[in-house]
Amino acid sequence: MYRNFRFDVISSRNKSRLGVLKTPHGDVQTPAFIFCGTKASVKGVFPEQLKKAGSQIILSNTYHLFSYPGSAHIKNRGGLHKFTGWNGAMLTDSGGFQIFSLGHGSVSDEIKGKRSGSPTLAKIEEDGAVFRSYWDGSEQLLTPEKSIKIQRDLGADLIVAFDECTPYHGDKKYTEESMERSHRWEKRSLEEFKKSNDFSQALYGVVQGGVHDDLRKCSAHFVNDHPFFGAAIGGTLGSSKEQMYEVVEMAAVELDSSRPIHLLGIGGISDIFRAVELGVDSFDCVHPTRIARHGGALVKGEHRDAIGREHINLKRSQYDVDDSPIEPDCDCNTCQTFTRAYLHYLLKANELLALSAIAVHNIRFMNRLMEEIRAGIAQGNLDEMKKKWI
Amino acid sequence: MYRNFRFDVISSRNKSRLGVLKTPHGDVQTPAFIFCGTKASVKGVFPEQLKKAGSQIILSNTYHLFSYPGSAHIKNRGGLHKFTGWNGAMLTDSGGFQIFSLGHGSVSDEIKGKRSGSPTLAKIEEDGAVFRSYWDGSEQLLTPEKSIKIQRDLGADLIVAFDECTPYHGDKKYTEESMERSHRWEKRSLEEFKKSNDFSQALYGVVQGGVHDDLRKCSAHFVNDHPFFGAAIGGTLGSSKEQMYEVVEMAAVELDSSRPIHLLGIGGISDIFRAVELGVDSFDCVHPTRIARHGGALVKGEHRDAIGREHINLKRSQYDVDDSPIEPDCDCNTCQTFTRAYLHYLLKANELLALSAIAVHNIRFMNRLMEEIRAGIAQGNLDEMKKKWI
Repeated sequence: MYRNFRFDVISSRNKSRLGVLKTPHGDVQTPAFIFCGTKASVKGVFPEQLKKAGSQIILSNTYHLFSYPGSAHIKNRGGLHKFTGWNGAMLTDSGGFQIFSLGHGSVSDEIKGKRSGSPTLAKIEEDGAVFRSYWDGSEQLLTPEKSIKIQRDLGADLIVAFDECTPYHGDKKYTEESMERSHRWEKRSLEEFKKSNDFSQALYGVVQGGVHDDLRKCSAHFVNDHPFFGAAIGGTLGSSKEQMYEVVEMAAVELDSSRPIHLLGIGGISDIFRAVELGVDSFDCVHPTRIARHGGALVKGEHRDAIGREHINLKRSQYDVDDSPIEPDCDCNTCQTFTRAYLHYLLKANELLALSAIAVHNIRFMNRLMEEIRAGIAQGNLDEMKKKWI
Repeated sequence: MYRNFRFDVISSRNKSRLGVLKTPHGDVQTPAFIFCGTKASVKGVFPEQLKKAGSQIILSNTYHLFSYPGSAHIKNRGGLHKFTGWNGAMLTDSGGFQIFSLGHGSVSDEIKGKRSGSPTLAKIEEDGAVFRSYWDGSEQLLTPEKSIKIQRDLGADLIVAFDECTPYHGDKKYTEESMERSHRWEKRSLEEFKKSNDFSQALYGVVQGGVHDDLRKCSAHFVNDHPFFGAAIGGTLGSSKEQMYEVVEMAAVELDSSRPIHLLGIGGISDIFRAVELGVDSFDCVHPTRIARHGGALVKGEHRDAIGREHINLKRSQYDVDDSPIEPDCDCNTCQTFTRAYLHYLLKANELLALSAIAVHNIRFMNRLMEEIRAGIAQGNLDEMKKKWI
């Protein structure tokens, strides 16, 4: 069923594992970070710059591309790889996240493009979800079958079954009913996938169940029991960091360890270390490229300012006369070329280059982080690496 | 006086000449195009990308940098080269162009940054020009001495004497008086330059005189008779292409042929060919990078659409399904990676990458144009080259 794909665990320490995920567009060394090219473009960054920064895999969002320019258009252009000029591995999500996370009223910064505003979730039916497009306001129905068909058109290597992204504020009864419906939707996604399988794509199932141990276990077993290539941990992960780690553990501990495990939407440095220790193989998050557009540059512990975040805000006046690079030990093109003072100036002067330059650093930063995490697993000194990065 | 600079004419055909302009930051093969990094950044393009596209020299505008962040700030950061990360040759203008061209009521697209709007030219005095800053509305006086001091702080290799950029709608009497004042200002610029000469910069004089043959001749002789390193042709060049060529010829034919000749603010393909034939060695214009931000991609004659401009507008719906690169024979990173259809989509989706990608193409295009012009002069087949590019 997945003859052009493979996931090999090379070595592991406790639950952390070093692996290789083989795709038709190249191998992905895991643990890996997947960068967001929401609308078929990592904002302001050329594919060549992504590659040079050590990126292995990027994603695009089905919801956005479905709204505009439409999946048929991208299919007719030869699919996402050919369309975007990115010839490495790629993932698309199911489209559900945007509809549900926004429809359920939580915050997402991802949909801030032209004619923006949120899509409106009109209703959830057994067949699928009815919503209004952010692009033209039209009413649309997204079903499991349609999500798979769209993802077939887009042509990413890794694709995801359609599910409901359950909110934190749902009660257990709602979360359980939603999970059961997600399981029915995921089975329909799998049926649609089998019908059109040409071995160019691999399908991930999604583990739901909110913050409830028994539901997460049930959902992990559902995914294990169906022929998905990999498992993604989705839905609400709770209201605190500690609860997030508990929920990830609830799911990860139950999942089939021969398959790759992806954690949806998480990209904090300490979160990644914790999740790797729980057995997670890949991550995606808009955070590194999104904060770049607001002047946020990721830095290791020793390079942080007093604010105590995992990034520094280059708009702050203290960087006006700071002639050092974002990080002196960073080999990215931005750190090799620009000072913090220049990036501060570019941000103040509203110069485009600031956004691309900080994004290039943040991308290289995440790739260096993942490289060192892999080295740490291989060498058995992940804890020491962690101290440096946190 | 200019011991770290040299201009050597290698060969010439009729009045066209092939030269090398030596600066402390590298040699510039002429005829050359100078790209606009108005506010100390070529918008959306990394220095590495500029270099890879074959760029030899860029400029920044004294007026903008004087307004923000101030020349002292850039001096304290080590000067423009260190500040911007561009280690090739650089030019700054005198600051007069923006004050006068905008103050006199003509159009400029260059000043469209944050808190934009035009500077207001308050008055022209013998001492200098009084204007209001576009950045903070403060009233400022720019004098020849101050312009040179600012350009010393900025630290570009090539700098320009302070003059009045005379408008087309001035009558001959005004144009003559203005030219005489410009000559006095240029002499003061030269005196200030001599006082602070540390051999790191070379000063260009500016030829004024509007569209009047006798005034252009007089002004060219003024520049020849003073120890400027090079001559720049400035001020109004008339109201039509034909008049522009006439005015350039009036000045160029009189100028000392041992010095480099720069034509200020001109960057059209056919204009460059005509001016090269009249002996011009370098050009600058915001056009190639400015049109990129509006979807305009420069193309040779054979690749143009029906509109008859020197560029195609990738926003036009005809490019929605055009799977070819901007130019199939272009070796730039954009043409090697992206199709017209993808760039069209990025523009429609308001994705940042479009602007950088088209700018990279336009920069490579201008550098290829200049490379072929130099080859055409060397080989004696400039006319054939011209047919291909026009």
